[in-house]
Amino acid sequence: METKRTAVEIKNLMAYLGEEVIVKGFVESIRDHKKVIFMILRDADAKVQVIIWKNTTDEVLLEQVKKITTESTIKVCGKLTSNPFVKLGACEIIPSKIEVLSLANSPLPIDNTASLQDRLNWRFLDLRKPENLLIFKIQTALEHSMRETFMAEDFIEIHSPKLIGAASESGAELFSVKYFDTIAYLAQSPQFYKQMAMAAGFQKVFEIGPVFRANPSFTSRHDTEFTSVDFEFSWIESHEEVMAFEERWIQKMMIDAKNKFGDEIQNTFGVEIQIPTLPFPRIHMRDALKIVAETGYVAPKEYEGELDPEGEKIVFDYVKNTFNHEFMFVTGYPKKIRAFYHMLEDNGETTKSFDLLYKGMEITTGAQREHRVEILEKQAEAKGISLKSIDFYLDFFRYGVPPHGGLGFGLTRFLMLLIGLRNVREVTYVYRGPNRLRP
Amino acid sequence: METKRTAVEIKNLMAYLGEEVIVKGFVESIRDHKKVIFMILRDADAKVQVIIWKNTTDEVLLEQVKKITTESTIKVCGKLTSNPFVKLGACEIIPSKIEVLSLANSPLPIDNTASLQDRLNWRFLDLRKPENLLIFKIQTALEHSMRETFMAEDFIEIHSPKLIGAASESGAELFSVKYFDTIAYLAQSPQFYKQMAMAAGFQKVFEIGPVFRANPSFTSRHDTEFTSVDFEFSWIESHEEVMAFEERWIQKMMIDAKNKFGDEIQNTFGVEIQIPTLPFPRIHMRDALKIVAETGYVAPKEYEGELDPEGEKIVFDYVKNTFNHEFMFVTGYPKKIRAFYHMLEDNGETTKSFDLLYKGMEITTGAQREHRVEILEKQAEAKGISLKSIDFYLDFFRYGVPPHGGLGFGLTRFLMLLIGLRNVREVTYVYRGPNRLRP
Repeated sequence: METKRTAVEIKNLMAYLGEEVIVKGFVESIRDHKKVIFMILRDADAKVQVIIWKNTTDEVLLEQVKKITTESTIKVCGKLTSNPFVKLGACEIIPSKIEVLSLANSPLPIDNTASLQDRLNWRFLDLRKPENLLIFKIQTALEHSMRETFMAEDFIEIHSPKLIGAASESGAELFSVKYFDTIAYLAQSPQFYKQMAMAAGFQKVFEIGPVFRANPSFTSRHDTEFTSVDFEFSWIESHEEVMAFEERWIQKMMIDAKNKFGDEIQNTFGVEIQIPTLPFPRIHMRDALKIVAETGYVAPKEYEGELDPEGEKIVFDYVKNTFNHEFMFVTGYPKKIRAFYHMLEDNGETTKSFDLLYKGMEITTGAQREHRVEILEKQAEAKGISLKSIDFYLDFFRYGVPPHGGLGFGLTRFLMLLIGLRNVREVTYVYRGPNRLRP
Repeated sequence: METKRTAVEIKNLMAYLGEEVIVKGFVESIRDHKKVIFMILRDADAKVQVIIWKNTTDEVLLEQVKKITTESTIKVCGKLTSNPFVKLGACEIIPSKIEVLSLANSPLPIDNTASLQDRLNWRFLDLRKPENLLIFKIQTALEHSMRETFMAEDFIEIHSPKLIGAASESGAELFSVKYFDTIAYLAQSPQFYKQMAMAAGFQKVFEIGPVFRANPSFTSRHDTEFTSVDFEFSWIESHEEVMAFEERWIQKMMIDAKNKFGDEIQNTFGVEIQIPTLPFPRIHMRDALKIVAETGYVAPKEYEGELDPEGEKIVFDYVKNTFNHEFMFVTGYPKKIRAFYHMLEDNGETTKSFDLLYKGMEITTGAQREHRVEILEKQAEAKGISLKSIDFYLDFFRYGVPPHGGLGFGLTRFLMLLIGLRNVREVTYVYRGPNRLRP
């Protein structure tokens, strides 16, 4: 009875109304009534009802159907018939043959009441929820949109090494790797290597890849491995050019995501994507601190001269109320809290750098980089970094290098904020934390 | 004297003929003649001549020009004038002001006679050669083309964890990482995690990311870290579907690369890209071995029943001569030389798997995966793999899973072969080998 026809994706079924079809999918539910058994079959995009009439279906098939468990995968051959009473597409399949591709154990180890820990333990089952599949469809669309901008503007894609011989920043939070007879480290960011591309004359580069932080904290916004989006470009006059690129790059990303998934995001997460106007609001640190001070809030001592997370929220609320905008660039960061490679402003105290906050949370740090090697060396030494440990990096600036700047963008954080979730674990395909290496 | 105009990319200069322009670039060469100094300025896409007449240029500017070294970066303000005798675009810039952005030390540490080791030591200088920049422009185009296919066919992009708690294959060639109070490993491939996406119902996924191999060999085709392209999709009937996808995916990639860079590749590397016809030739292992045997060549003992690199070349030559084709799928690999998760053919001996060879070198291994957990367990045990060590992986197959297959594709190898190079070091942005962690 096998037809020669190849299987049809469920979303394309309607073209075959009245015909014999083959469909494959997960059995989402089985309802066994007196006269009839209903099964809902699900693939990645759509669902369809399969109806088995007990009085007209042959014994063998009926017995087979009774053994099927929910979440099993099956292949159904049958006739696709119109039925206006069926909510799902007003059609259903009357099967002539069913093949069980994979029988699911029953019961499933988690249900809808499972804790976050159990859900992460059984991540592959957790991901079957439609809202989780949607999250990764959105992520895919965001990444494609950002790459379209990069391609349209002649950026070169790089894959920088994750195994490195020396720390790119402070040396804290570095994972060490046994590397034959020596020790390597895992890159915390592609910073040095995207700057190397500038010294190589690549002019504009981007990278989307993993970065690693040996951070022992368990907060809802930290993980030990995440996907970072980095870009860097040459011949700039100031960090303002990096900000100007980022804001239109994000705007396009959000327009594309809204066009493709706006309704689904609204229905699933209750969030209407607000397309940001250009330019994004910009606020200098001194003004941001004034706004915080005026509320009477006093940040913990270690945050003197900068914004702590609570301060970021206060300033974000101010900006949101004043400008009706969910994004905010903060500039004027003092050098003591920025990396040694950020270029200083003429005052010698503040940096040509910025953070971008979205819905009150930091998603980007960017800057014009210091490309004058004598100044760069001084700035490294002032931070207590041994020049010897970064000699290969300093070399990039000794044989002609364009002025340049760029940023790092946390894909996971952005995605989380976009759809209104509050934990990076929810939007990470397979989360990694201090206690979590499995699955 | 600063004009308000922003800098122009050199490739766009011609629109400004007769006007004051600002350009920025590397000083590729300086020729100091009796009456005139010529400088060639280079950015990532084009070059332009700057001409300094000694009798009409002001003293300060002239003195400044004399101090400029090759490979310094400069900003030039001046008049773009037509000159039919100038090969480069028949125009030149007469500067009114030059700003040195970064003065290059002289001499450069490497020149055109440098050894491969020295070139890798000074990779950022080596990458300034136009042929090296071209390599990464081609790589960017290839990746964009492959993603376009993935997007058109509704694949989901995943970023699977590189820090893993258990080996995904044999446990050999694994790097270990000190992970807080325990040990983690670096993923050798996203194999288990892309299969997890199938169990999660993601249906079609791809990933482009780093993989790590603690392989101590120094051959021209091995490295300890490289960029792997992986995809996997569900509901297949056999590995033939994976092969059919791959061949049209590669064909599009090569058409796109040829359209964009065909002439440059021809001029730079002397290679004319041959667009492969579909389907690619397929050859079963038993026939491949016959072809090798007929030449009288005997492979080393450890390769019994399969092709060694020399055998691959022999079969490739045969296929190339017979089919005039640079690609060749080899099928019918015996189970003893394939991973435990490859599905067996009905004979119980050979696998539903394939390699793809391009110009005689393996660039892909792919297969239909065994999704029936009882068989999968038996196959793992037959390879001496403890079921306990892969319990989290086996769970993927216990709660309903679609039949699926996929492959891994070596981007670096493909790129190398496409342009006719013979060493992965040449086409890797920053190469990593047993003795190389820098830059």
